[in-house]
Amino acid sequence: MIEMTRSNTEKTSVVSAINEKGDVVEISLVEEKPLTIFVDKEEVVTLMTMGAFPELLVMGYLRNQLIFNQLNEIKAVQVDWETEAVAVVSNKEKKDLTKIKERKTITTGCGQGTMYGDVLESLNGVLMPKQLIKQTALYALLKLLADYNKIYKTAGAVHGCALCKGENILFFVEDVGRHNAVDTIAGYMWLNDIQGGECVFYTTGRLTSEMVIKVAQMGVPILLSRSGATKMGFDVAKKFGVTLISRAKGRHFNILNGIDNVQLDA
Amino acid sequence: MIEMTRSNTEKTSVVSAINEKGDVVEISLVEEKPLTIFVDKEEVVTLMTMGAFPELLVMGYLRNQLIFNQLNEIKAVQVDWETEAVAVVSNKEKKDLTKIKERKTITTGCGQGTMYGDVLESLNGVLMPKQLIKQTALYALLKLLADYNKIYKTAGAVHGCALCKGENILFFVEDVGRHNAVDTIAGYMWLNDIQGGECVFYTTGRLTSEMVIKVAQMGVPILLSRSGATKMGFDVAKKFGVTLISRAKGRHFNILNGIDNVQLDA
Repeated sequence: MIEMTRSNTEKTSVVSAINEKGDVVEISLVEEKPLTIFVDKEEVVTLMTMGAFPELLVMGYLRNQLIFNQLNEIKAVQVDWETEAVAVVSNKEKKDLTKIKERKTITTGCGQGTMYGDVLESLNGVLMPKQLIKQTALYALLKLLADYNKIYKTAGAVHGCALCKGENILFFVEDVGRHNAVDTIAGYMWLNDIQGGECVFYTTGRLTSEMVIKVAQMGVPILLSRSGATKMGFDVAKKFGVTLISRAKGRHFNILNGIDNVQLDA
Repeated sequence: MIEMTRSNTEKTSVVSAINEKGDVVEISLVEEKPLTIFVDKEEVVTLMTMGAFPELLVMGYLRNQLIFNQLNEIKAVQVDWETEAVAVVSNKEKKDLTKIKERKTITTGCGQGTMYGDVLESLNGVLMPKQLIKQTALYALLKLLADYNKIYKTAGAVHGCALCKGENILFFVEDVGRHNAVDTIAGYMWLNDIQGGECVFYTTGRLTSEMVIKVAQMGVPILLSRSGATKMGFDVAKKFGVTLISRAKGRHFNILNGIDNVQLDA
């Protein structure tokens, strides 16, 4: 059992603005807060986050950055918004964080823009399991998802991500950075021992290389987005066998990779 | 004179996809390429970029990260897409890059997500000059800007930024990361000795803290976005006296900060 805070924090604030007519209007703004991760008292990184599920975010981040591989390596995850810090205590010998800090790539993603050097290497030769999705199931998910993005509807300025299975949404999260949202889902899957093989990953954000890489890391074979893709996102999806579907909105979508895995039954 | 490549690279690629009707459709995807910056042969960071103006991007990035302050400190900026690297040669003694690499903050921004420690400190006490903008000028700019985002119209998945003055657009750039776009404009201003005091900065991206900080670094007093803001972006704008206008689209906008600087003359 990991000793874990369940820290909650305000997601939005209301401020007064003036619109084009000169009227005072009340505007909801999404919170964006620094959260500095310390692993065994050593500073790793500062994430800017809305703070919906900070413990899951930190766990997913550390796992996706290959700092931890097994849940039992973590003893505690303690978030403290007063100091804007999260203390992660490991069970094992002190983690060597030097190597992973060496290489820094600033990605195109919103939010967590840093990929450490070993991530791509660790995925060498990985190929997603073949998993089918029906067009009717895809439409059912899109319809369900429309009710989920509550913060986006009131304040905008966030991205949403969802982990889906069949026609169900297992977990949905919004954050100011879309990579935070992805990492939060990674943390959720890890903590609840959910394998990605039968899942579908939905994001409102763009399908950049890092987004595809992270989903491959989580073992999810189908990636669905409301937005478009980059060429490198497309290339990475081909490499890892990720079924890549862009511009999924209403009844429209484009299958960029993995055509054989989508059954057009609608 | 800085020895500078003017490297051009393909911005988009066309791939075949299958849409919801089972039809083959040709889709333009924006390029996303790694570009590793070396300063005096020392690796600083890898940016993921579409590559519209890589030399300006790198110069703006290095300036906004406080690695260089004066143009004459730079001898050469040589981009080589074959090796996905850019060699920056300084004129002075070898730059000490250790300090700036120490602190890492992963921001909410798309694209360049890393702010080095000293940036906020360097802005301590900075206040933007008071600069007025007329509603009619704002509408004229929005109308002009609609013709500029060419890549977005064909491929999506990019953000656009513009430097404006009066009712004119001085420079417009699109990139896969919106912070790349901002830094490219910073590089353009730096190279062409353009002061920000009478300018307006437009972005299609969200007004997060880092976006406002970068615009304040560039000395631009008015920041205009098609998207929303975060609470921290709002707070930073108040701190540095940046006139902050969100949701500027068609004839609508919200003035979040600096109401006195906007003349509602339409």
